[in-house]
Amino acid sequence: MLGRIVIDDLRPRTPSRSFPAKAVEGEAVTVSGDIFADGHDVLAARVRTRRRGARRWGGEAPMVHLGNDRWETIVRFDGPGRHEVVVEAWRDRFATWRHDVSVKAGAGQDVELELEEGARLLDELTPLVPELRRAMVADAAAALRRSACSVEVRLNAGLDDAVAAAVAGVPLPGGVSAADPLPVWVDRPRGRAGAWYELFPRSEGGFSGVAKRLAAVADMGFDIVYLPPVHPIGRQHRKGRDNTLAAGPDDVGSPWAIGAAEGGHTALHPELGTFDDFDAMVAEARDQGMEIALDYALQCAPDHPWVGEHPEWFHHRPDGTIRYAENPPKRYQDIYPINFWPEDEADRVALWEASRDILTFWIGHGVRTFRVDNPHTKPMAFWAWAIPDIQRAHPDVLFLAEAFTRPKVMAKLAEVGFTQSYTYFTWRTTKAELTAYVTELSTGPTADYMRPNFWPNTPDILSGPLRNGSPAAFRLRLLLAATLSPSYGIYRGYEWCENEPQSDANEEYRNSEKYELRPRGWDDEAGPLTPFVRRVNQARRAHPALATLRNTRFHHSSKDALLVYSRASDEGDDLVLCVVNLDPDHWQEDTLSLDLGALGLPGDEAYEAHDELTGATYTWYGPHPYVRLDPAEQPGHVLHLRAARPA
Amino acid sequence: MLGRIVIDDLRPRTPSRSFPAKAVEGEAVTVSGDIFADGHDVLAARVRTRRRGARRWGGEAPMVHLGNDRWETIVRFDGPGRHEVVVEAWRDRFATWRHDVSVKAGAGQDVELELEEGARLLDELTPLVPELRRAMVADAAAALRRSACSVEVRLNAGLDDAVAAAVAGVPLPGGVSAADPLPVWVDRPRGRAGAWYELFPRSEGGFSGVAKRLAAVADMGFDIVYLPPVHPIGRQHRKGRDNTLAAGPDDVGSPWAIGAAEGGHTALHPELGTFDDFDAMVAEARDQGMEIALDYALQCAPDHPWVGEHPEWFHHRPDGTIRYAENPPKRYQDIYPINFWPEDEADRVALWEASRDILTFWIGHGVRTFRVDNPHTKPMAFWAWAIPDIQRAHPDVLFLAEAFTRPKVMAKLAEVGFTQSYTYFTWRTTKAELTAYVTELSTGPTADYMRPNFWPNTPDILSGPLRNGSPAAFRLRLLLAATLSPSYGIYRGYEWCENEPQSDANEEYRNSEKYELRPRGWDDEAGPLTPFVRRVNQARRAHPALATLRNTRFHHSSKDALLVYSRASDEGDDLVLCVVNLDPDHWQEDTLSLDLGALGLPGDEAYEAHDELTGATYTWYGPHPYVRLDPAEQPGHVLHLRAARPA
Repeated sequence: MLGRIVIDDLRPRTPSRSFPAKAVEGEAVTVSGDIFADGHDVLAARVRTRRRGARRWGGEAPMVHLGNDRWETIVRFDGPGRHEVVVEAWRDRFATWRHDVSVKAGAGQDVELELEEGARLLDELTPLVPELRRAMVADAAAALRRSACSVEVRLNAGLDDAVAAAVAGVPLPGGVSAADPLPVWVDRPRGRAGAWYELFPRSEGGFSGVAKRLAAVADMGFDIVYLPPVHPIGRQHRKGRDNTLAAGPDDVGSPWAIGAAEGGHTALHPELGTFDDFDAMVAEARDQGMEIALDYALQCAPDHPWVGEHPEWFHHRPDGTIRYAENPPKRYQDIYPINFWPEDEADRVALWEASRDILTFWIGHGVRTFRVDNPHTKPMAFWAWAIPDIQRAHPDVLFLAEAFTRPKVMAKLAEVGFTQSYTYFTWRTTKAELTAYVTELSTGPTADYMRPNFWPNTPDILSGPLRNGSPAAFRLRLLLAATLSPSYGIYRGYEWCENEPQSDANEEYRNSEKYELRPRGWDDEAGPLTPFVRRVNQARRAHPALATLRNTRFHHSSKDALLVYSRASDEGDDLVLCVVNLDPDHWQEDTLSLDLGALGLPGDEAYEAHDELTGATYTWYGPHPYVRLDPAEQPGHVLHLRAARPA
Repeated sequence: MLGRIVIDDLRPRTPSRSFPAKAVEGEAVTVSGDIFADGHDVLAARVRTRRRGARRWGGEAPMVHLGNDRWETIVRFDGPGRHEVVVEAWRDRFATWRHDVSVKAGAGQDVELELEEGARLLDELTPLVPELRRAMVADAAAALRRSACSVEVRLNAGLDDAVAAAVAGVPLPGGVSAADPLPVWVDRPRGRAGAWYELFPRSEGGFSGVAKRLAAVADMGFDIVYLPPVHPIGRQHRKGRDNTLAAGPDDVGSPWAIGAAEGGHTALHPELGTFDDFDAMVAEARDQGMEIALDYALQCAPDHPWVGEHPEWFHHRPDGTIRYAENPPKRYQDIYPINFWPEDEADRVALWEASRDILTFWIGHGVRTFRVDNPHTKPMAFWAWAIPDIQRAHPDVLFLAEAFTRPKVMAKLAEVGFTQSYTYFTWRTTKAELTAYVTELSTGPTADYMRPNFWPNTPDILSGPLRNGSPAAFRLRLLLAATLSPSYGIYRGYEWCENEPQSDANEEYRNSEKYELRPRGWDDEAGPLTPFVRRVNQARRAHPALATLRNTRFHHSSKDALLVYSRASDEGDDLVLCVVNLDPDHWQEDTLSLDLGALGLPGDEAYEAHDELTGATYTWYGPHPYVRLDPAEQPGHVLHLRAARPA
């Protein structure tokens, strides 16, 4: 049965309402809903939160009525794990009485009976209010009944604001309507914001080589170092350089062709190092304030041990062979897809558990973040089971979905549990495209469950202005990724402005590192963009505003090449305005139109704009500052805005 | 656990997804959903429908993929009652095989093994296809294996369209993913479309007087005659003329002050007639092809028998009196609101059942439609219980919500079960307002569960251009109501162009019929608008397009005073274009811009536009016909559009 008060359309929620919404520790999460009842009574509502399974409420916040029967409040969650949010509403009988009796008295109506009704209501409420205020409430009830006094005097005693405050938020027993709990999955802050750096350990001299370079990566300001698969690479049908069919004896193969005689998903490629080396690299990352993310690619090379041990986990053909991966007419003979739905249910359970146990194994080696390869080619039901199963025991584990697939599939992967998702950012380059896409991702229902991770490049994708692009184009796309999304990443080579495409028709790199070693310099020989990357990451670290997603707002510029957006911190105490020139070849100038009211800045006083990239500070007045951006110097301003100090 | 195939975001549904969507018998209902799976397999999907509780499926329709993983089909329901809709999807393994083998053969790849795989698939499918086609499918399997023939010959046999058609829509056992059933409440067609006429029987000489006038009402083309409450009227605190406090001895009182010594909600006002008279009136309406709708107003006059019999069903004050209705500082001493939540749960159950039994009583007297007075001042939970409870036994019963309240409350009343709702039409007069409002009501999620009923006037509301309005204004608002909404109604007096407001500040009528008798003429003395009303209703009856809601589309006119909209029938075989001059004082002309493609009309051939109001027929070419509308002659065109017959 419906409750006495209707509580509807609650947010945050996911589209199917069958999975938890997402938040991070400490994030300001708006909880809202439609709340109404029959009649004219004043309503009150609150949100209570607790960890799933906990008996006690961990937090409580009163909701406010925004109008049109919509109520909201802000809550925060104290740590990773599954939480629940319950919205409760009740008729605020004292506020209703207070309103009605005031209006009646104001209209000259007799309120003698109303005074007694108010006194009785306070009698009921007295034992429920906090002890310190009980006497005050009881006194107010007595005052309402003090027949020696005039109606006016007694009424004033009953209308006392302190009394109203004391009983506000105190529902009478039996009068509370509660909505079904909203589940919210809470990640550690890195689940929302972080700078990723992808490198191939084999190009860096294996795990010990990576460990030596982590200080330089940390110095660039990255938070997560993501490694492509570190497992033995199949030899059967191994691919040669640039994805050619015939591998020579020295070809190293694709790390995604996982498994060989040396082992499968829980083994290390012998040439990368030992488990001791691996563990030392993980520890060194931690010492540098970073972490190592591994690739989780559920597929097997033909010589993966599972093929012999568990033929029932693969697809078989009438001639007894195992089906390799195909997307006709394309063939991937070096990869066997896994059959996630073997006929025998016991086989399915064994396979899914073995797949999950790969994660558990690496968690045992200190890994807390996984970049999941092609999650859309594995069953949605697998992720909906495996991710919560892992996170129940390890709530600090994060999953980034390499969901380069159709929009609804990408969204569903986020809904069923992925912490973050790769996005279409790589292919969004114009002002209209970027504005629409970031607005979709940062506002409304999407941001309740899907968190973007913007990558200007990956080992698979050299796209848009980066193809044969200038250093200015590389600076531009990095700045956009790093300031439009709280999570972003680059694949090493980016700071070297590697820009040579495989071919006009192919989005991949020429001399792709997926199939060969690509050693590059460090330290003195760092890439030409290294200082710029460092400055951008420093700006990100200095500004909590750049760690948020939902508070992104676009501002008007009359120029198609100028993208103007602001982001504010959860607390509202940090504000960054970015003005980016989308044209890497020509300077642009404009007089902007900022929405100062939305920014919380005064319209009639000076404010300061400090450029985090150049160190320059501008003093601006009003909503129409002039900007000029030359891409040869900088792709954009990253401006810390604040009201100017008095002169 | 999620199924192997994701089936998501299904429609039709209600906002909370906790109540049935709505349809009427025979209505073309679009069922749609997101359907996708991992991998590249071709999917197939279908919708199956059945009455709730039935073992057998009553209908089945294959779904088609619209793109972006959205699938849809159209289903129809065969009769009133609760139905369920199940969307099922599976991998179409034969279509996948057919696609893949064609591509591979086209690329010159060896497909010998694929032929055997196709044969094995057909072996599996053979026993599942309808008997008539089994031999054909088995033959195709044999042909695929005929080693004496070339690969080309065998492949062609396997790719035969007839074979593909035979196995299309045949899922293999165990391979079907089914979504949770969608509930749909199906009403008789009158639940969606009908013309209502409200009259006060006491102004017409009671039930026998009404019965005599039903032929004239039917002649005007109305479907439902709605009567304000027909029960005894309270004498205590009875209101006088125009809602004055002091009733004279001859004042008849408001029919909504229900209950007196003679009885309550199941009694008849003695001056209106006997139950025999009432039953005869109901029967006469039926003979005239109409029906009688009663008012269901859950409130009591102070002398209602319930007040004495069930004091626990009312609110009590400290002095022992019963609380009358108030909206401070307004007081309604002639009305006692019911306390729907008595402290004792048994009292609540008894009250709710007694309230429901009022409906059952009048259903026993042949009434099948109820106009519910102020439903938003009664608990939502009551309606969510009472309406399905009544409709379970009487699925042909309809409820119109007088939900003149806030938008979310209006929508929720529709969601929990009301068949139709009064709307804000009365206060929507400009082109922008009407376009936005009708678009909201006729498209998207709202039309899945809420059906509008447009009233230009009610006994409570004389608004907008009707206040001191001209006959042209009355024609205009009637035409809009009757052609923008499949259900509409007028309160008698409208065709007399009664236009005198209570006061400048008051939306009610002067000399309101709610408090006094207002006899008017019939037959020869019919109102000045009677012929116009008749023509509009005749057009409605002639055109199934005007009985639909979802197929409403607005077209462009450069004039703010011209509203142009088309409506199409469920079957797409009837098309009506309305061009309405919203300015009752000045003629308007324009060259329109019709979306002929959306109308299904040829862009390069003539089409006919027959005006159902004037009888004129125009032959138009192209999307830019010229129109000129003089409000002194007619408020708008109601044009039946069709491709012109060959000359």
